[in-house]
Amino acid sequence: MTMTHQQDLKGVFTAKDLDFKPAGKITKKDLNTGVTKAEYAVRGAIPTRADELKEELKKNPEVLPFDDIINANIGNPQQLDQKPLTFTRQVLAILEYPEILRVGHNELASLNLFSRDALERAERLLNDIGGSIGAYSHSQGVPGIRQTVADFITRRDGGEPATPEDIYLTTGASSAATSLLSLLCKDSQTGLLIPIPQYPLYTASASLFNAQVLPYYLDEESNWSTNSDEIEKVVQDALKKQIRPSVLIVINPGNPTGAVLSEETIARICLIAAKYGITIISDEVYQENIFNDVKFHSMKKVLRKLQHLYPGKFDNVQLASLHSISKGFMGECGQRGGYMEIIGFSQEIRDALFKLMSISICSVVTGQAVVDLMVKPPQPGDESYEQDHDERLKIFHEMRTRANLLYETFKELEGIECQKPQGAMYLFPRLVLPKKALCESERLGIEPDEFYCTSLLESTGICTVPGSGFGQRPGTYHVRTTFLAPGTKWIQDWKEFHQDFFSKYRN
Amino acid sequence: MTMTHQQDLKGVFTAKDLDFKPAGKITKKDLNTGVTKAEYAVRGAIPTRADELKEELKKNPEVLPFDDIINANIGNPQQLDQKPLTFTRQVLAILEYPEILRVGHNELASLNLFSRDALERAERLLNDIGGSIGAYSHSQGVPGIRQTVADFITRRDGGEPATPEDIYLTTGASSAATSLLSLLCKDSQTGLLIPIPQYPLYTASASLFNAQVLPYYLDEESNWSTNSDEIEKVVQDALKKQIRPSVLIVINPGNPTGAVLSEETIARICLIAAKYGITIISDEVYQENIFNDVKFHSMKKVLRKLQHLYPGKFDNVQLASLHSISKGFMGECGQRGGYMEIIGFSQEIRDALFKLMSISICSVVTGQAVVDLMVKPPQPGDESYEQDHDERLKIFHEMRTRANLLYETFKELEGIECQKPQGAMYLFPRLVLPKKALCESERLGIEPDEFYCTSLLESTGICTVPGSGFGQRPGTYHVRTTFLAPGTKWIQDWKEFHQDFFSKYRN
Repeated sequence: MTMTHQQDLKGVFTAKDLDFKPAGKITKKDLNTGVTKAEYAVRGAIPTRADELKEELKKNPEVLPFDDIINANIGNPQQLDQKPLTFTRQVLAILEYPEILRVGHNELASLNLFSRDALERAERLLNDIGGSIGAYSHSQGVPGIRQTVADFITRRDGGEPATPEDIYLTTGASSAATSLLSLLCKDSQTGLLIPIPQYPLYTASASLFNAQVLPYYLDEESNWSTNSDEIEKVVQDALKKQIRPSVLIVINPGNPTGAVLSEETIARICLIAAKYGITIISDEVYQENIFNDVKFHSMKKVLRKLQHLYPGKFDNVQLASLHSISKGFMGECGQRGGYMEIIGFSQEIRDALFKLMSISICSVVTGQAVVDLMVKPPQPGDESYEQDHDERLKIFHEMRTRANLLYETFKELEGIECQKPQGAMYLFPRLVLPKKALCESERLGIEPDEFYCTSLLESTGICTVPGSGFGQRPGTYHVRTTFLAPGTKWIQDWKEFHQDFFSKYRN
Repeated sequence: MTMTHQQDLKGVFTAKDLDFKPAGKITKKDLNTGVTKAEYAVRGAIPTRADELKEELKKNPEVLPFDDIINANIGNPQQLDQKPLTFTRQVLAILEYPEILRVGHNELASLNLFSRDALERAERLLNDIGGSIGAYSHSQGVPGIRQTVADFITRRDGGEPATPEDIYLTTGASSAATSLLSLLCKDSQTGLLIPIPQYPLYTASASLFNAQVLPYYLDEESNWSTNSDEIEKVVQDALKKQIRPSVLIVINPGNPTGAVLSEETIARICLIAAKYGITIISDEVYQENIFNDVKFHSMKKVLRKLQHLYPGKFDNVQLASLHSISKGFMGECGQRGGYMEIIGFSQEIRDALFKLMSISICSVVTGQAVVDLMVKPPQPGDESYEQDHDERLKIFHEMRTRANLLYETFKELEGIECQKPQGAMYLFPRLVLPKKALCESERLGIEPDEFYCTSLLESTGICTVPGSGFGQRPGTYHVRTTFLAPGTKWIQDWKEFHQDFFSKYRN
């Protein structure tokens, strides 16, 4: 900066203009209390400390007792070992740079970079998109991609029809959930039925939109199952307190529990929705992450079955179901894509949702394209099919192997109880901590599970999230970990840490 | 769906379970009134009607008096004529599909698809990003990209330093503005100073977050300039009414006005912020779209100058400035990227903002990469430089030519008054409509400018937005149009429509 520039402004103010006492800065009390109260532990204190340790490792690696941070705090597969599916990335490269389509086919083939079906898919998508992924799309998303999604849902749900008009392509499931809740949270008497434990986006949204959390506890002893009687009891208690139970959030497969709901449980949830007029948000982002002989049933499929079986009884149910490209075989978290399907809502609610979504114009168009690729992978006979199939199998097997290994490791240890993994990317074992550990955490002024997770991080570099970040029954303590990190050394490190921790704090 | 499937659920419910009267569906009155009241005309009634006409054109082209819809309602350059910059798309293709980097250099060079500097930039970005754009990034964005942004701001502002810690990479400027306002809108006594006319995101956000709009009118007669005395008067009036003027929104260059603020005007805005402790949000997304001998000055640069000139007087000013990849030379709307720089906020406010941003995890990583490419284009000596430079010149010239042509056309017409284009992508001419037209619109129950825009759409296929969607002085009427659509035929069509309209409704 030169003095000449400064002088440009020198004559602007008179002495009188400048005769003022500058006002104070804003403080936390000037902010929206919904925001200041919201909590989101997945990127909270422990992950923040892990980031500091990561910087420390770069500067002074010798002072820390580990060589690397293992980010087991967040389901972020491509940060760790999961490779993107080749077909997905071929198509995306062409969408970004359609000049690739203009290279002679033989020349391109000699490079062995792009399969024929990737070229074809990219051409179709560019056509659907209108020529450039750099243009805003329709606020619900590109119509052709919404058609692909509708076709997928129809197949998945055994022929129950879905239509593009009911689909919104979104910036991931988080943004879909946030938009829906901002619409549906009328005032501080609005109640959101949220499973406990839960993915903390939901309690954070309740805080942001000034609604009441109506927690319904999942049953840890029976593999974190959902009990509809428990939900109905919460509904009735809320009504007595003049709180309107407006939205019922279901996470299936569960995060952080990994529990997969049975058709019967889903049917019972639909019954509550029908009886009390509660809108269901069904977070189904882990529908591809299913292990160990369980089966995923979508809320929509079960609802449609009930509508056929019991005409007139379930027609009033309003459902939004969410899916994402961040999980499953894609693991494309950074591409930010997903969809929601909305059914049963009246036209005025649909119009209000459309207006709300149009304020943010549209979701990222490459993310929309990834949704297309997720729901319509290469088919037998396509040039990419075999490679794609092998890549998917590898992802599936590695994830299941690690899930089971971690589970078996926890099972052997004292003071840790773990349910068998069914789905998603997480284990949520219970810590039965010795009294001495509880006293130590009290002395430090932190929750016992936070104390455990902090100690684990500082000793091993393994970054997890304490159960308190997800909710748990009072007096119980848990830890959420992903099973995405490669190798087995970190599992061995955790085991040794746990044994040392118990040696130190055993009563 | 087969009957077998249905039978699975048949035994689930008892007759008693099913003995209930289904509840009613939710209606508009069950929704968040902040959402139902929000208005966003850029994708409102007239653009929705244009979508219907587009469908009609596909089915029955012969029934309409035009062949195509001209979407002049939204600044969406790549939907129209603007080509993406080649360098940008080369780098993005490699980020999506890093296998391209593993092809032998000679083989790749023979295709003439990727320049050497695109390969190098992609390698650097992949390294900064941590290997895959499919992983979530840090919630503020990739640190290396934030460093590139900080370097850009430092250069742009004549050496005034910027740091990566002050930068957030966001899903475009809309998402940055919405996040900031959700944090800063405490309650219904919070006042947002919003220029009128404005980009309707701001009044929509005021509605979403239940804050008061404190409109300050821009001076149409002096090329839509901003008068700080007018702002200060609005501040004082608000304070008298117990409304806290918390946030001052500045759009520079203006949307929809295209006005570019002088350094003096910006200095006077800073003075108000300093005096009353008002946070400034400076929407500077059109900073590259500058025509006709004006110069863009950033709010940050002027604020820093004042802080140097008058120690202690301006140190309290809190500023967030926004930029976007959607406008300027990139025009990458569908990629959804931007940044905000936050300065002057205390640590507790910074912490609250970080937590809020972490709830949505991170912005799309390819969009973050486009920010890097926007703020650090190829330099002289780089292989891409000449082509990139030519592409930019072409975009600039075409946009300026069209802006001036449209302006000259309006100038010739009766009943339309237009300020000279200075920046952005829009003209916002005033309609001085004959009484007969006012009567006709009253008869139809719509605003006169809506009547004009609807007639324009139905006659010519040109989709614009009435001034009422942006705000205007009572009794005045305007129309906002982009000058992005290619060719000159649509301008001629508009001219003819306008002459016919006046012939029909002339007093």
